[in-house]
Amino acid sequence: MKNCIVAQSGGPTAVINASVVGVVEGNREARYFDRVYGGINGIEGILEKRIINLSDIGNEDLAMLKYTPSSALGSCRYKMKDFTEGEAEYNALFNIMDELEADTLFYIGGNDSMDTVSKLSQYAKLKGLKAQIIGIPKTIDNDLFHTDHTPGFGSAAKYIATTTLEAYLDSSVYTNNGIFILETMGRDTGWLAASSALAKVADEPIVDFIYLPEVAFSKERFLIDVKNKFNEKKKVFIVVSEGLKDERGKYLYDTDFTSKHDRFSHVQLGGVGSYLKNLIIEEGITPRVKVLELMVTQRCAMHSVSQTDIEEAYMVGKDAVEYAAQGDTGFMVGINRLQGDPYQVETIKVEASKVANHIKYFPTQWITPEGNHVTTEAIAYIKPLVMGTPQLIMENGLPKYIQLY
Amino acid sequence: MKNCIVAQSGGPTAVINASVVGVVEGNREARYFDRVYGGINGIEGILEKRIINLSDIGNEDLAMLKYTPSSALGSCRYKMKDFTEGEAEYNALFNIMDELEADTLFYIGGNDSMDTVSKLSQYAKLKGLKAQIIGIPKTIDNDLFHTDHTPGFGSAAKYIATTTLEAYLDSSVYTNNGIFILETMGRDTGWLAASSALAKVADEPIVDFIYLPEVAFSKERFLIDVKNKFNEKKKVFIVVSEGLKDERGKYLYDTDFTSKHDRFSHVQLGGVGSYLKNLIIEEGITPRVKVLELMVTQRCAMHSVSQTDIEEAYMVGKDAVEYAAQGDTGFMVGINRLQGDPYQVETIKVEASKVANHIKYFPTQWITPEGNHVTTEAIAYIKPLVMGTPQLIMENGLPKYIQLY
Repeated sequence: MKNCIVAQSGGPTAVINASVVGVVEGNREARYFDRVYGGINGIEGILEKRIINLSDIGNEDLAMLKYTPSSALGSCRYKMKDFTEGEAEYNALFNIMDELEADTLFYIGGNDSMDTVSKLSQYAKLKGLKAQIIGIPKTIDNDLFHTDHTPGFGSAAKYIATTTLEAYLDSSVYTNNGIFILETMGRDTGWLAASSALAKVADEPIVDFIYLPEVAFSKERFLIDVKNKFNEKKKVFIVVSEGLKDERGKYLYDTDFTSKHDRFSHVQLGGVGSYLKNLIIEEGITPRVKVLELMVTQRCAMHSVSQTDIEEAYMVGKDAVEYAAQGDTGFMVGINRLQGDPYQVETIKVEASKVANHIKYFPTQWITPEGNHVTTEAIAYIKPLVMGTPQLIMENGLPKYIQLY
Repeated sequence: MKNCIVAQSGGPTAVINASVVGVVEGNREARYFDRVYGGINGIEGILEKRIINLSDIGNEDLAMLKYTPSSALGSCRYKMKDFTEGEAEYNALFNIMDELEADTLFYIGGNDSMDTVSKLSQYAKLKGLKAQIIGIPKTIDNDLFHTDHTPGFGSAAKYIATTTLEAYLDSSVYTNNGIFILETMGRDTGWLAASSALAKVADEPIVDFIYLPEVAFSKERFLIDVKNKFNEKKKVFIVVSEGLKDERGKYLYDTDFTSKHDRFSHVQLGGVGSYLKNLIIEEGITPRVKVLELMVTQRCAMHSVSQTDIEEAYMVGKDAVEYAAQGDTGFMVGINRLQGDPYQVETIKVEASKVANHIKYFPTQWITPEGNHVTTEAIAYIKPLVMGTPQLIMENGLPKYIQLY
């Protein structure tokens, strides 16, 4: 028997299961592995031998899995120690793989997961173990190096831009509409917030300001931005990344605002959106300020998924099996954009160690000189990633999703 | 010339523009009015003569308008004084209608708007004015009497149930998932929160508890509910209506929690979801509690609209024109459910005064004896309203929406 294991790690996305289906169906075509096992809860669950057999899943369930959001194999946030600090975990893992007659592990995740891929493959090489460890990228944050973008980002971008459109229309109906703040994820990078720039009505952009973690936040400049725009239009639509930092590099929601309030409880009440709302109100610009925190909706909204994203997530899974058949290890399957219009991509192999623990920031040259919006180059980059809307499997008017365990 | 005016009032919905399109296209068929005017920002804007001509809109734009969320004619929250307190506004309005040669006003809104319909038509009758004032229902809250349900509710219900599904999957991926609280709108009634009960995976309901404003909230019972469920499953999924009230009938978010925090700012930070999160953490059940406030997304999410809802919103608009041709005034076009399965409805005329200023609560008999969930009858009632998913007009991967002014 020659088997493999596929597992998922880190935060869920809308399309992370499409990569699992890509591995399973890729192998059904290639017939390279006898069995595809699924590890439950990533490395953490594999170490506890929580394994299911994915080879037996019927085609109908596989089709449903491809269009089911969130990590159907469960996930973990487990960082392996360096093997120089202790080999026990490494031994345990390779023993379990041996028991399962699995010489290949496909690990779907972000830069922490690529760290795992890198460490495991290095260890295996060092010990002369016949094992292939292969990374498959996934993160809505789009912050991985050496890949044009990451599966999961396109769907999050599509959901954010769509919700921006709809919230903008909703917040425009009265004669005095006030200010709307939409808060996206993105603790370190501004890719998600930037994608709101795609939202247009009659070809006109509707977001007035986008604030990214890549630009040090200045209260003074922010209040001038907002005050001027509000005086001009009597409404302002702002998109902000949760990870905004001040000039000293401190997260805004770690500073005076939350600490002032947290004295009374252990609950963190509001993120950076609420912080900005407070600034606007204290400045006396208007008391009418709404904050919408998208939270988990932006990473699991299969009902607004990008077809391009789904197909690419599937492709990196499928191609991972082909690359496995070529015998290499310690790499991540990246996406290379051959051309933007018409959009065309291919997969490439990238050394996992070059991806691990690095963060690809939103490019400075795609941020406007004022630091409060993004350029047309940014929009042109993101646009192809949100294209296409698949027909989901529906039941009783709602999407039909599957759970694997 | 014989013209009419159509206008929108109150909070937006995903399908309120479909009713406008119903009026315009209904009249294109019936050829009853020479022109259909649109009043901008409801009664408030009509009184300022902010009027556009909807008769000239091309078919392509009308098709786009039907699938554009939020009030494309703008809205207002304007309550007319009783005419016994002053007739100036009444005179002004009917003079403007005279100027426009419009003898009919279609007013799309909730129970406040039906109050306007009722008052205007009574005044017109009293003064012998040849004017027809006709109400068209709209509210995501589903709280109008004498109609089986209200256009706007089905789409909100579909969005809430879909997002519940997706957030549930997202919140189930780790070995220690904690507690998830999803907060819906519904200041007075529980219809929206109840609709989360539609969310099922493998035919099993996924929401553990639903708390409605119709049931007086007890901290003690709530904490017992949550503690027992968390001990049993290590995760709990809770849906809560923003309008939860305590045993004295006071809104929870008006009580100790927010006042405690609001001393420091004028900002209201969190609603009832944050309040419950705080209770859970203070009780020591788990510190892992996430709150998702759906906010405006639930009333403007055209990208997750119900086809049934769109068509019914269109139908009440279209039939309003037919009823107008019959000469009656002072009524609302209601929806009568002829049968549930297969689902079949017809429109009916309902006296606007019977709808005005009343609230249709979620039925007590559809709430479980424990007061923390809804019955299968409730699910059977809501289910047909979320059926069908139309293909939206897309551009660059995003829905294409239209603004009228």
